[in-house]
Amino acid sequence: MSDPLVGIVMGSESDLPVMQEAADVLTELEVPFEIRVRSAHRTPTQMIEYGEQAAGRGLKAIVAGAGGAAHLPGMLASVTPLPVIGVPVKSSSLSGLDSLLSIVQMPKGIPVATVAINGARNAGLIAASILALSDDALAERLAAERERIAGLAEDMDKRVSGSSSD
Amino acid sequence: MSDPLVGIVMGSESDLPVMQEAADVLTELEVPFEIRVRSAHRTPTQMIEYGEQAAGRGLKAIVAGAGGAAHLPGMLASVTPLPVIGVPVKSSSLSGLDSLLSIVQMPKGIPVATVAINGARNAGLIAASILALSDDALAERLAAERERIAGLAEDMDKRVSGSSSD
Amino acid sequence: MSDPLVGIVMGSESDLPVMQEAADVLTELEVPFEIRVRSAHRTPTQMIEYGEQAAGRGLKAIVAGAGGAAHLPGMLASVTPLPVIGVPVKSSSLSGLDSLLSIVQMPKGIPVATVAINGARNAGLIAASILALSDDALAERLAAERERIAGLAEDMDKRVSGSSSD
Amino acid sequence: MSDPLVGIVMGSESDLPVMQEAADVLTELEVPFEIRVRSAHRTPTQMIEYGEQAAGRGLKAIVAGAGGAAHLPGMLASVTPLPVIGVPVKSSSLSGLDSLLSIVQMPKGIPVATVAINGARNAGLIAASILALSDDALAERLAAERERIAGLAEDMDKRVSGSSSD
Amino acid sequence: MSDPLVGIVMGSESDLPVMQEAADVLTELEVPFEIRVRSAHRTPTQMIEYGEQAAGRGLKAIVAGAGGAAHLPGMLASVTPLPVIGVPVKSSSLSGLDSLLSIVQMPKGIPVATVAINGARNAGLIAASILALSDDALAERLAAERERIAGLAEDMDKRVSGSSSD
Amino acid sequence: MSDPLVGIVMGSESDLPVMQEAADVLTELEVPFEIRVRSAHRTPTQMIEYGEQAAGRGLKAIVAGAGGAAHLPGMLASVTPLPVIGVPVKSSSLSGLDSLLSIVQMPKGIPVATVAINGARNAGLIAASILALSDDALAERLAAERERIAGLAEDMDKRVSGSSSD
Amino acid sequence: MSDPLVGIVMGSESDLPVMQEAADVLTELEVPFEIRVRSAHRTPTQMIEYGEQAAGRGLKAIVAGAGGAAHLPGMLASVTPLPVIGVPVKSSSLSGLDSLLSIVQMPKGIPVATVAINGARNAGLIAASILALSDDALAERLAAERERIAGLAEDMDKRVSGSSSD
Amino acid sequence: MSDPLVGIVMGSESDLPVMQEAADVLTELEVPFEIRVRSAHRTPTQMIEYGEQAAGRGLKAIVAGAGGAAHLPGMLASVTPLPVIGVPVKSSSLSGLDSLLSIVQMPKGIPVATVAINGARNAGLIAASILALSDDALAERLAAERERIAGLAEDMDKRVSGSSSD
Repeated sequence: MSDPLVGIVMGSESDLPVMQEAADVLTELEVPFEIRVRSAHRTPTQMIEYGEQAAGRGLKAIVAGAGGAAHLPGMLASVTPLPVIGVPVKSSSLSGLDSLLSIVQMPKGIPVATVAINGARNAGLIAASILALSDDALAERLAAERERIAGLAEDMDKRVSGSSSD
Repeated sequence: MSDPLVGIVMGSESDLPVMQEAADVLTELEVPFEIRVRSAHRTPTQMIEYGEQAAGRGLKAIVAGAGGAAHLPGMLASVTPLPVIGVPVKSSSLSGLDSLLSIVQMPKGIPVATVAINGARNAGLIAASILALSDDALAERLAAERERIAGLAEDMDKRVSGSSSD
Repeated sequence: MSDPLVGIVMGSESDLPVMQEAADVLTELEVPFEIRVRSAHRTPTQMIEYGEQAAGRGLKAIVAGAGGAAHLPGMLASVTPLPVIGVPVKSSSLSGLDSLLSIVQMPKGIPVATVAINGARNAGLIAASILALSDDALAERLAAERERIAGLAEDMDKRVSGSSSD
Repeated sequence: MSDPLVGIVMGSESDLPVMQEAADVLTELEVPFEIRVRSAHRTPTQMIEYGEQAAGRGLKAIVAGAGGAAHLPGMLASVTPLPVIGVPVKSSSLSGLDSLLSIVQMPKGIPVATVAINGARNAGLIAASILALSDDALAERLAAERERIAGLAEDMDKRVSGSSSD
Repeated sequence: MSDPLVGIVMGSESDLPVMQEAADVLTELEVPFEIRVRSAHRTPTQMIEYGEQAAGRGLKAIVAGAGGAAHLPGMLASVTPLPVIGVPVKSSSLSGLDSLLSIVQMPKGIPVATVAINGARNAGLIAASILALSDDALAERLAAERERIAGLAEDMDKRVSGSSSD
Repeated sequence: MSDPLVGIVMGSESDLPVMQEAADVLTELEVPFEIRVRSAHRTPTQMIEYGEQAAGRGLKAIVAGAGGAAHLPGMLASVTPLPVIGVPVKSSSLSGLDSLLSIVQMPKGIPVATVAINGARNAGLIAASILALSDDALAERLAAERERIAGLAEDMDKRVSGSSSD
Repeated sequence: MSDPLVGIVMGSESDLPVMQEAADVLTELEVPFEIRVRSAHRTPTQMIEYGEQAAGRGLKAIVAGAGGAAHLPGMLASVTPLPVIGVPVKSSSLSGLDSLLSIVQMPKGIPVATVAINGARNAGLIAASILALSDDALAERLAAERERIAGLAEDMDKRVSGSSSD
Repeated sequence: MSDPLVGIVMGSESDLPVMQEAADVLTELEVPFEIRVRSAHRTPTQMIEYGEQAAGRGLKAIVAGAGGAAHLPGMLASVTPLPVIGVPVKSSSLSGLDSLLSIVQMPKGIPVATVAINGARNAGLIAASILALSDDALAERLAAERERIAGLAEDMDKRVSGSSSD
């Protein structure tokens, strides 16, 4: 259908269960996207190439997830003018603290917009909020999603408030 | 029965298993309470409203639990004169260290009385100890609870001291 | 003048520069208090005695500060029914992370209401908010203090907003 | 001159030395902005109001900085559809680790795009890269800025390579 | 049989699986010991009393284990001249880092000899090495234990070296 | 067959599941190696002897793994001129952060080349890359291994890109 | 005068300002000691030799300080039956957390009795408390030292209690 | 003079004070080297090119230093078959813990041989120990350097042992 506006990139297929949430929220919001594996360490040339071509191919934002010494988001950011949103993937030894610091502590000049450990859904939401600045229909769908989760909280409140003392 | 004196608030129903311990100890101590879901992030208006009305509704203390970037206790504290007791809920990635720091490191002027990670029972006990300052019967029930747990420790001592060398 | 309602206790005179802020805010709020040195480790008997007698002497809350393996707040909490508010004092090696964990991670049954590292002013405010539950004049002074710091923020806003681009 | 497109918000004037770097880079890139103090904890009502009105006032992104239990970026994100970029301000006790975790570990549904501790210049650059998606002249200025810092690195290389052994 | 020379103390029966290893190694080394539950927080008076009487009852060392805000080893150390060996028990949220810091970071004047998280066997060995300074037969049993574990390492070497390439 | 060129050493057989990956990659690359258990703490004399004799026996590099207070790699480094590659083994309490710091933070003069927690395969690859400096056939096998993992990433890309929106 | 009973060992002269406190307290308590530099990494043979000969030379305990990847206390413990008391020296980058974990997290079988970061005075006190088990005069001097520091705390109390509100 | 055998690379001239120690030790050991600035983030193309050409230009090892989200060592490792030795540069906020984790936690297949925070001298020594495998004269100079630092430790011992009690 539509050309993708958001590139969801990960260093390994093993990150897919985490990164799928970015795809899911973009699907819900009807934002076209692509999912790709580009490894900063194993396929650096293709990774650089992906970043260099992203804007020209019509992408408006990149969501990149990686774990451990997570270099993918920062390296993509170094070769694209697009906003890059980084997802620290929870790692087996240090629970994602290494992933988080490797992604968020970027030097002056080359930023990565970082979300919570395993926070891929929120990364997708940031991408959508950027696109919504010039897409009123998307802005409405985002507003509806906000209302939906507010509604969920209100439903929860109804259920738990029944446990109050009486 | 009685109007609630303590408000137990959480950001999501998923925090209920942890926060239930606050309700349990207040039930044991016969302190009337209410349980509510108010999300700092998903229902900020209702959350602020809850905080602003708490004192007027007769509450004397608020026990608020949240995890991750845990803003609920601090935001309630910013809109109520009541003592707010914060419960850092153990998080999936960082084991609650993020929750703890997000709750305890409040700036000058707006305090949150913070308990241990997942320490909801203790949060309930702090609320009760505050109420007991002007409720002698509650003070006696609290004293009895102290004796009960001291007794448990003494029972344990009897059991384990049998394992001493002989 | 009045008998003290709040006991400010520290393990060493070297904690006084931090703990003085609790005294200052109580002075501002006209809450009578006492300041004492009781060391959990160097004068344990006097420390226990202080905690055991606190309620009988008319105190309504204890603010206790300590650093490193900070045992003072928790040990006082074990011998008094009063709310104990713990202040983790910044330590020389680990910046107060040790103090914070030693104070906040109390076991079930014996809580300490913990504030930020070096957050003695907030500890004083919690004590005052507890007393204000049954002292309307104090409640008004606390409300005025809230307005004062809100005013400071508004003044800051006026100053910095002049740096906006134009 | 122009109406501001980016709101730079901080919890206290004491954060200005850090947050000024966001203003500086936006000035360099000719992006109109405003600087405001809105405290999540001391002026919660005004803070919520600021967030609620931001989009309607024509802002396209918010850069929010805070330290310690840093709730400002997340709370603004909860009341605006705009992208919110969070700047963890280095704190006195825990070097900004508390600020970072309080900002980045947001729950599903309400994201904050987080940069490095004290990384306000990068926050400004993210805001600019978002605006540049629909502003070709700004995109060119951003590209020139990239070339400028690449040039600086090349100049450094010339200087240090003279220290090679010979 | 013999009067106990080492007191193994814990704050709760739930620490017994960890602390049992101290008892086991003392049994193996034929050092008489006792096991007791004394809670710094739930039975402070008995805990202090235990510490004060330990030397007079003939104990030569105390092995004390606790988790979280672990105050037991330090409080016993404050009331006994005996060497106190602290065992940080692994905690549910912070994996024992809180226990470790609460035990090891004691202030000047009142030391606790701390072992690894869950390192109760090593705590027993330290107690034995102290007693062995004036008990040659025990010194020989300790030396034999050293030889035994060296032998285990040599046996392991024989097994794994068979996996070398050939 | 050939004399071993790499010594894979561990402190305990329990480290074998982790360290086996170093052996596996060396087997794949046809680099002869030996596997030994030498405990810095339980068999210090044999450990020192192993290090002192390693170069004379024809080894060109040592891969040493250990956990907790991991002294094996650093102690071997202190008695051999060979490059020593350290593998921090994930520990039960602190997830290998203790192992990592104990290995990597060596003082000036005696380095250990440290890899990721449980990164034994990478330790084997470093050993191979050192040997490949003077072994062209090995260099080719290493290059082929690089191509193999790049190919795996490309295969992953084909699989996941099918999940792009359409 | 007397032959030394305690060996104070450090890896580098740069640790002397920290370790001097162990010497000072032993001087105050009239316990004869020696101070030596033995580097686990730079003079491993002499270090091992020192450990192996310590008991035979009449030493009763070893106090060993080191920073960073601090292997000295653990390696001495591996070659002596004497109690080894480890002092983690504050390091320049990680504030001694690396030193602490490298010393305290010893494996089963070879314990190090660890004190606080830079806690050399307490290490000396542990050594003295061990010697005092068979030296009544020393036990009295230790008791006097306890009384002295209790007196200091009482003096502090007199000074600060004058700051109570009145 | 000679063509460089070791490339010392850093992301910014501001890392030079730390990385100079690698140059110094290589100068002392008469190993020819070059120093270059190549930024993973600001000059990614030149950085990749440097890595790709390093082996062909005759380099035998790369020493790469970087701070914060330190991607330089890992990215060079991804494009060169040479051993890459990573130096985590101490960062302003997190003391180099971010640098360390960003460098050492590399994924399977692409290793970086990591040294201590600011451990550039040791990185130079690892490079030299690799070259010494096929350069006997260098091996002798390395052995002499080991003797030199052992001698320094022995000199220290003479000085401090005079402070023993007498």
